[in-house]
Amino acid sequence: MRLDIRLNAIVDPENAGRHDLIDLARRCAAGGATLVQLRDKRSETRVMIEEARAIKQALAPLSVPFVVNDRVDVALAAGADGVHVGQDDMPVEDVRRLLGASAIIGLSIKNVGEAEAAPVELIDYVGSGGVYATVSKQQKNAPIGPAGLARIIEALRRRSQKPLPVCGIAGIDESNAAAVIAAGADGVAVISALSRASDPTVAARRLREIVDAMLAKRGT
Amino acid sequence: MRLDIRLNAIVDPENAGRHDLIDLARRCAAGGATLVQLRDKRSETRVMIEEARAIKQALAPLSVPFVVNDRVDVALAAGADGVHVGQDDMPVEDVRRLLGASAIIGLSIKNVGEAEAAPVELIDYVGSGGVYATVSKQQKNAPIGPAGLARIIEALRRRSQKPLPVCGIAGIDESNAAAVIAAGADGVAVISALSRASDPTVAARRLREIVDAMLAKRGT
Repeated sequence: MRLDIRLNAIVDPENAGRHDLIDLARRCAAGGATLVQLRDKRSETRVMIEEARAIKQALAPLSVPFVVNDRVDVALAAGADGVHVGQDDMPVEDVRRLLGASAIIGLSIKNVGEAEAAPVELIDYVGSGGVYATVSKQQKNAPIGPAGLARIIEALRRRSQKPLPVCGIAGIDESNAAAVIAAGADGVAVISALSRASDPTVAARRLREIVDAMLAKRGT
Repeated sequence: MRLDIRLNAIVDPENAGRHDLIDLARRCAAGGATLVQLRDKRSETRVMIEEARAIKQALAPLSVPFVVNDRVDVALAAGADGVHVGQDDMPVEDVRRLLGASAIIGLSIKNVGEAEAAPVELIDYVGSGGVYATVSKQQKNAPIGPAGLARIIEALRRRSQKPLPVCGIAGIDESNAAAVIAAGADGVAVISALSRASDPTVAARRLREIVDAMLAKRGT
C-alpha cells in the first residue's frame, strides 16, 4: 500500500513552541496529518523512548502512523511504525533488516546524486529538501527551491518501479505549500508551521486543504 | 557462564589520546582486556556503526567480547555482543527483549538505591562508580571511593541469586586498581589509563597483573 505522505508532521521538543510535545502530535493528527515523526536530537535515550511511547498511544485512536527520526532503538523499544533516516544515520539496508518488511522507512534526499544512489526498493517515502530556508534546523546547503525539488523527484521517478511518495521539507507553510505540490511532491513535511501555530489542529487542516486541492488538480 | 569482567576497556573517540580508535581497541584486547566497550556520545549514527563494525572485526581473532554503550541500534546493526546502559538509557527490560537471552547486558549503578532497584536477573555485569575523580567524563556526583563501591557490591550480593560480576569505574589506574578489587569488585573499567598510555597493550597487561594478583589473594 502506498504511504499517505500528504501532511508529514514532525514534532521536536526543541521546536515545540508553547505546546506540550505529545499534545502537539495529537493535535496535528486530529487536524489531518497523515504521518507523524518524532525528531529529538538531544534527549537521553530513556526520555526519547518515553516520548515515543506517549505519542504512539496518543495517535492510536486516530490511526495515524508514527515514525522516529534516526533512532531505530527508540522505534523498536516504543513499537513505532517505522523510522526516518538521513544520509548520516543507519544505512537503509540495516534499518530494513532490523525492522522487517512491514515497517515504514523514510529517507532524506538532498540532491540528485543522493536520489540516484538511494536504495529506492527498500524505502516507503522520501523527504526532500531543504526546499526553503528554515528556522527549525541548521542548514548546511542553500535551499533547493521548487525547481531543485522537481529535479530530485524526476531522478527518483526514473529509478523506482513502484510509485515512491515524496514530501518536500524545510520552510514550508501555507504561503508556499501549493508550490511544493506543483513541483511534483506528494505532500509536505512541516515543523514550525504547526508548532508555532496557536492552534496546530487548525493549521494542519489548512495545510491539508492546500495540499489536497493541488493534488486534485493534478488528478492523483 | 559468568562474564569475565577483570579488565573492561572502554574506547571513546573523544578520549582516544593519540591512538586510532580501532587500533586502541585491538591493543587493549591484545594486552588482556576481557571486555571492550565502545562509548561514543557525539558521532552520527552511521559513524558509530562503522566504528562498531571495525572494532568487532578487530577483536574477533582475540575472542574478546564487545559491547556498545547506550545504543542498542548500533549494537544490532554491527552485530556486537551486547550493550552497556546507564540509568538514563534504554530500560534493561527493553534491552533484553530486543537483544535476546544470549546478549551481554551491563548496567551502570552509582549508589545503593540504584543497586536495590536494579533488575539484577536481567543483567550480566555491573559497572559501578564513579570510584575516583576522572577526566574522561563529566561527573555529576562526588566520587564514591572504595568504601562506597563496597556498599553497592554488598547491596547487589543481597539481591542477586547468581554471582553478578561488578567492575569499578572512573579514575582507575595502576596506582589504585588493587584498592578497587580489595573493595570487592571483580574487575576494573578504564578509559584514560589505556588511551593515554604510549603502549596500551603494556598498560592493559600491567592492569591485568594487578587485578589478577588481587583476585588470587581473595581466592576467586
